[in-house]
Amino acid sequence: MDINLNKNKNMKAKPNAQPNPTPKPQSLKVGIIGGAGYAGLELLRLLAAHPHATPLCITSRTHAGQRVADLFPSLRGAVDIEFSNPQESMLARCDVVFSATPKGVAMQYAEGLLRAGVKLIDLSADFRLKDVRLWEQWYGIPHTCPALLEQAVYGLPEIHREEIKCAQLIANPGCYPTAIQLGYLPLIENHLIDLDHLIADAKSGVSGAGRQASLDTSFGERAESFKAYAVPGHRHLPEMKQELEQLANRSVGLVFTPHLLPIIRGIHATLYGRLMDSKIDLQDLYEKRFAAEPFVDVLPAGAHPDTRSVRGANTCRIAVHRPQDGDTVVVLVVEDNLVKGAAGQAVQNMNLMFSLPETAGLDGIALAP
Amino acid sequence: MDINLNKNKNMKAKPNAQPNPTPKPQSLKVGIIGGAGYAGLELLRLLAAHPHATPLCITSRTHAGQRVADLFPSLRGAVDIEFSNPQESMLARCDVVFSATPKGVAMQYAEGLLRAGVKLIDLSADFRLKDVRLWEQWYGIPHTCPALLEQAVYGLPEIHREEIKCAQLIANPGCYPTAIQLGYLPLIENHLIDLDHLIADAKSGVSGAGRQASLDTSFGERAESFKAYAVPGHRHLPEMKQELEQLANRSVGLVFTPHLLPIIRGIHATLYGRLMDSKIDLQDLYEKRFAAEPFVDVLPAGAHPDTRSVRGANTCRIAVHRPQDGDTVVVLVVEDNLVKGAAGQAVQNMNLMFSLPETAGLDGIALAP
Amino acid sequence: MDINLNKNKNMKAKPNAQPNPTPKPQSLKVGIIGGAGYAGLELLRLLAAHPHATPLCITSRTHAGQRVADLFPSLRGAVDIEFSNPQESMLARCDVVFSATPKGVAMQYAEGLLRAGVKLIDLSADFRLKDVRLWEQWYGIPHTCPALLEQAVYGLPEIHREEIKCAQLIANPGCYPTAIQLGYLPLIENHLIDLDHLIADAKSGVSGAGRQASLDTSFGERAESFKAYAVPGHRHLPEMKQELEQLANRSVGLVFTPHLLPIIRGIHATLYGRLMDSKIDLQDLYEKRFAAEPFVDVLPAGAHPDTRSVRGANTCRIAVHRPQDGDTVVVLVVEDNLVKGAAGQAVQNMNLMFSLPETAGLDGIALAP
Amino acid sequence: MDINLNKNKNMKAKPNAQPNPTPKPQSLKVGIIGGAGYAGLELLRLLAAHPHATPLCITSRTHAGQRVADLFPSLRGAVDIEFSNPQESMLARCDVVFSATPKGVAMQYAEGLLRAGVKLIDLSADFRLKDVRLWEQWYGIPHTCPALLEQAVYGLPEIHREEIKCAQLIANPGCYPTAIQLGYLPLIENHLIDLDHLIADAKSGVSGAGRQASLDTSFGERAESFKAYAVPGHRHLPEMKQELEQLANRSVGLVFTPHLLPIIRGIHATLYGRLMDSKIDLQDLYEKRFAAEPFVDVLPAGAHPDTRSVRGANTCRIAVHRPQDGDTVVVLVVEDNLVKGAAGQAVQNMNLMFSLPETAGLDGIALAP
Repeated sequence: MDINLNKNKNMKAKPNAQPNPTPKPQSLKVGIIGGAGYAGLELLRLLAAHPHATPLCITSRTHAGQRVADLFPSLRGAVDIEFSNPQESMLARCDVVFSATPKGVAMQYAEGLLRAGVKLIDLSADFRLKDVRLWEQWYGIPHTCPALLEQAVYGLPEIHREEIKCAQLIANPGCYPTAIQLGYLPLIENHLIDLDHLIADAKSGVSGAGRQASLDTSFGERAESFKAYAVPGHRHLPEMKQELEQLANRSVGLVFTPHLLPIIRGIHATLYGRLMDSKIDLQDLYEKRFAAEPFVDVLPAGAHPDTRSVRGANTCRIAVHRPQDGDTVVVLVVEDNLVKGAAGQAVQNMNLMFSLPETAGLDGIALAP
Repeated sequence: MDINLNKNKNMKAKPNAQPNPTPKPQSLKVGIIGGAGYAGLELLRLLAAHPHATPLCITSRTHAGQRVADLFPSLRGAVDIEFSNPQESMLARCDVVFSATPKGVAMQYAEGLLRAGVKLIDLSADFRLKDVRLWEQWYGIPHTCPALLEQAVYGLPEIHREEIKCAQLIANPGCYPTAIQLGYLPLIENHLIDLDHLIADAKSGVSGAGRQASLDTSFGERAESFKAYAVPGHRHLPEMKQELEQLANRSVGLVFTPHLLPIIRGIHATLYGRLMDSKIDLQDLYEKRFAAEPFVDVLPAGAHPDTRSVRGANTCRIAVHRPQDGDTVVVLVVEDNLVKGAAGQAVQNMNLMFSLPETAGLDGIALAP
Repeated sequence: MDINLNKNKNMKAKPNAQPNPTPKPQSLKVGIIGGAGYAGLELLRLLAAHPHATPLCITSRTHAGQRVADLFPSLRGAVDIEFSNPQESMLARCDVVFSATPKGVAMQYAEGLLRAGVKLIDLSADFRLKDVRLWEQWYGIPHTCPALLEQAVYGLPEIHREEIKCAQLIANPGCYPTAIQLGYLPLIENHLIDLDHLIADAKSGVSGAGRQASLDTSFGERAESFKAYAVPGHRHLPEMKQELEQLANRSVGLVFTPHLLPIIRGIHATLYGRLMDSKIDLQDLYEKRFAAEPFVDVLPAGAHPDTRSVRGANTCRIAVHRPQDGDTVVVLVVEDNLVKGAAGQAVQNMNLMFSLPETAGLDGIALAP
Repeated sequence: MDINLNKNKNMKAKPNAQPNPTPKPQSLKVGIIGGAGYAGLELLRLLAAHPHATPLCITSRTHAGQRVADLFPSLRGAVDIEFSNPQESMLARCDVVFSATPKGVAMQYAEGLLRAGVKLIDLSADFRLKDVRLWEQWYGIPHTCPALLEQAVYGLPEIHREEIKCAQLIANPGCYPTAIQLGYLPLIENHLIDLDHLIADAKSGVSGAGRQASLDTSFGERAESFKAYAVPGHRHLPEMKQELEQLANRSVGLVFTPHLLPIIRGIHATLYGRLMDSKIDLQDLYEKRFAAEPFVDVLPAGAHPDTRSVRGANTCRIAVHRPQDGDTVVVLVVEDNLVKGAAGQAVQNMNLMFSLPETAGLDGIALAP
């Protein structure tokens, strides 16, 4: 546990990217499968500054042999390793592996890594659904290790913290589901809303679609425009229903409308629910529920969070409203889809799994403006 | 009716901005009060190309004496008049006056202009509410000519076309109310949804806030970010409730959540309603309702309109969905807030008031990408 | 010459997109090869509103059989034809064909079309260079009809108007070369600057790279960022050198630095030259040179054009400065890369070739804000 | 030196913003005058995470009494102090004061603070010019303490590191001058270019204009557009000339053309110079010159830096080109105007003045995408 690749001799010494001139002590050895996407880049940014973890290997078939910082110049001086072809032997030397791959890839590595005693945090969707038939229906391919679905722990610490601490395999939540579950959490836990008619109107920055050559996410198609998509059905819907139903201990009716925002980072979820109890002090409810949560911030009454207030940070900010004192509650939730919605939450899960301080490496302040 | 200021001798001849080298025949004389804002600029863009109308005077206290094209270089070669101080005598020479001013200004001119036989199309909120107490409550100032509130016709042609044709005074609808009313129209007219629980989640480009020096609409505050605002109550709420209630002939419960999009032009309204009749063919309903409407375009089933598809055009595009075949209808509506949401609709109203072809001057194709 | 597909019976009658309810009289039959890109979309927008031209066929192998307005919803109600596979027999029925294809495609059709008496306006680079070896060196493929290189007329009307009128084959200029040549034109024609040391620092919106699935033009890579590219050498460099050298009648030293702007449409060229004559009245020089040009607008002394002032318009706006009264002239030039830099200039060339008014169909006013 | 307001009892404990649960040891007491702008916000972001400095007081007449995190929600949990009215007694208790005010304010505090033994780092322009007449000519107001102009040290560490270490008063460089001086530095130090004809074509994000209500920096005016400004003369010109001339030990001819980019953060300077020596290895020259500089990163030959690669970081990235092997060198420089161009450089200066590690608190990795 003493390897610190940041101190590789080939590296030009640039102090700005080296918070600790001495190697990180007691550092976890970390592997990343599929490191050439935005989630991979964000994992590297967070792990390079993490006091107790060091990226040991990063795989990418496309970029094998290329220095990471040549692909991602923002990491120059901070990350000094190369992409490699995925090799199980290399990954098996790690303490923990993050998979940030398209669907169907993580499941190929999961059994081998777990057998080798390596913990796996999967940022893809491979282990998020408990029902294998439902999974295959939404993702359109066979699941190759359904036995692990039950074992996998859904990595939303605000709900599953204790299970995460003991987990070997984490299904890191989707970006939309994180925001939407956190926003509904106090209402559902306390049986305050009509569960048959939840409406989640959500808006996501384009980086949520990943780092890819795609006409649909090109600048010419997305800038200066806005639209809904996947209104008939989005893959995050069954994940949210599964988790909300587990929380409510009954079936839940949820309409989920995702939209594409012309921003890079950020999710804003606007949640609607019909209140069953009109006397509840919603502000107090939310503040108390999240008082001990390091990464959920309840704003003062009347506030409207904006996505930039969490840009680059692992924070989820929430405001709760009851317009016109009516019977509809409106919850506003923002997160950075690449941080609390992906890489940051994955690091938070790693911290919990290895008994590190939950906030280690996650204390960066949001970048605004 | 023969003045054509486009042919002013001082103007440098640039054919690109002069569709008709001969003066416009039978041209309406048009005045604009408060022409230095975005609605004023858009009115000028549309009227300069209108075959039967000619801007005669444009007022702006701040810019009096300045050439319009010096303030708005996009109009160079197309508009060759100066801003002037507002003078009733000048305005009284017009056939029709548009007011594109902050609240409380149009009401100062209305009686005088109407008395002089000039028709007035008010793009501000001064005449949108029938109930003067409600108006004063939301706008915070006394209304100086409440008698005109009853006389004013609400200028949404898809609902009030016949009254508009005979009107002397038009209250041009707000940008949000246009999109939201058009989206709900077929459902309410046919008593298909639960009127107590309408939810309108709307997103607007920044130009909706006008052309102004304001921190809140500055680039540094709005770019790469997104937020809701005015969730406790927005001034367009009573306008929408009034009109929807008139349509429904009963009270309506509406939650309206506006958001600020980091785009210049465009509104996207995502409308939710609980269906009372699950067998209705929604696609057919919408197509039939708007078949004869020149400026409402119902997209094919399954489509998701984007705001750029109407950029610069007077078109409102609508798609209707019933996700998961559930009991909630989701209507997606887009418009350009400066065109169908303001200046374009105002010109449409002018065309109706003067028995011109309803689409005259409004046939511009949306600018995409 | 009487086919008007805008009146196709299948088309839903939406007046907003039909300026003339009667078929266009004496209409040119127009074909477009490669109509599924941004230049194709812009050609369709301009031609649909052109008083004397009608799109007859649009080819796209990828989208053959699909309705154009299904791919480009902004054209709904305005264009009612389908994409077709490229067939020479179909194209040969046209009066004029625009090619808006990648390099190497137009050259495959040129000889056949010209033989059939069809005029060809090529928006790609296939016929822009006179020297076939230079062409093959920069474009990396063999040129299949070098004999046409000499015959092709370079379609910059401000320099080659008379030749264009008689041309059968037009090489429509690149977007950067249009702005840069127009900006330098008065200085070079009058031998006012040191021709060995021209510097063109140019910035282009992302649509200049075309409508394509490409990581490099994706929103996540381009938004909220800015960079130079191709500083060692850009394909527009030999085109500009060829034309400037022809104008100067001697060799020219040009440093050309293109940059990628996070906007969709617009080019801004900032041109530098060392003045050989310090007494010249630059403002007067530019105003006189372009006084009769319908699409070049010289701004008042001291002005700074912005790209939005020409968004959607075929106008090139220019301002000329001599900072600190020094010996360096700075010329600021803006154009819409899709209009004056591509489709608009192509239509301008068509108008000249068919003795139509040069400004026909090109009188749209820029869309600002 | 033991006050740590981050541990204020009123503060809600949110670990994510508290890297050190124990108070910072040996912490510098820091004051900020004019903390409600973007430079103030950025200073707070950097200082809240600085291991050896603690913000003690932040002044803002407008926001006195308001909690900083209420104005800047991105700082919630990280900064727990209020804005106060500027009081000399309070500021005099600090070890160092940053002034991030409009012109003419810092000069009112300078003498008093220096007399009280407080070091002052002025981010405004008050002390950047040595020639008081030149200063008054460009800034249009009388300078109230010209005697301090000579004493002030120009805070560009890459040139003046040793003087900065001993300075009491730092004139923190402007954002444009930082990028442009660093880019020209190796060429001028080694007498490699024609000093009479330097051309700096620079592009800046909108945050460079500050956090203010201004039409010119509004979203509607700046988004989806681009323009040059202040071509006849910008206030950073005399600052750059003064410093470059000191470096060259002779007069310098510089044309400086600033442009406004539709991004929030980032400056890109494209620098041109005519080489006097065509055999020099430019890549080697730049790499050697900056090898020991912690915050200047020379990219590999052929690279094009983009502004996002330094977003939020104190790094300046440089690439050097000689297009077509000609006699013109083109240097590409990027920086974050709020970090290396303002607050970050100010913290770097503070570190030097107090013998702290130069990179303390400045090791944040750029946020991309």
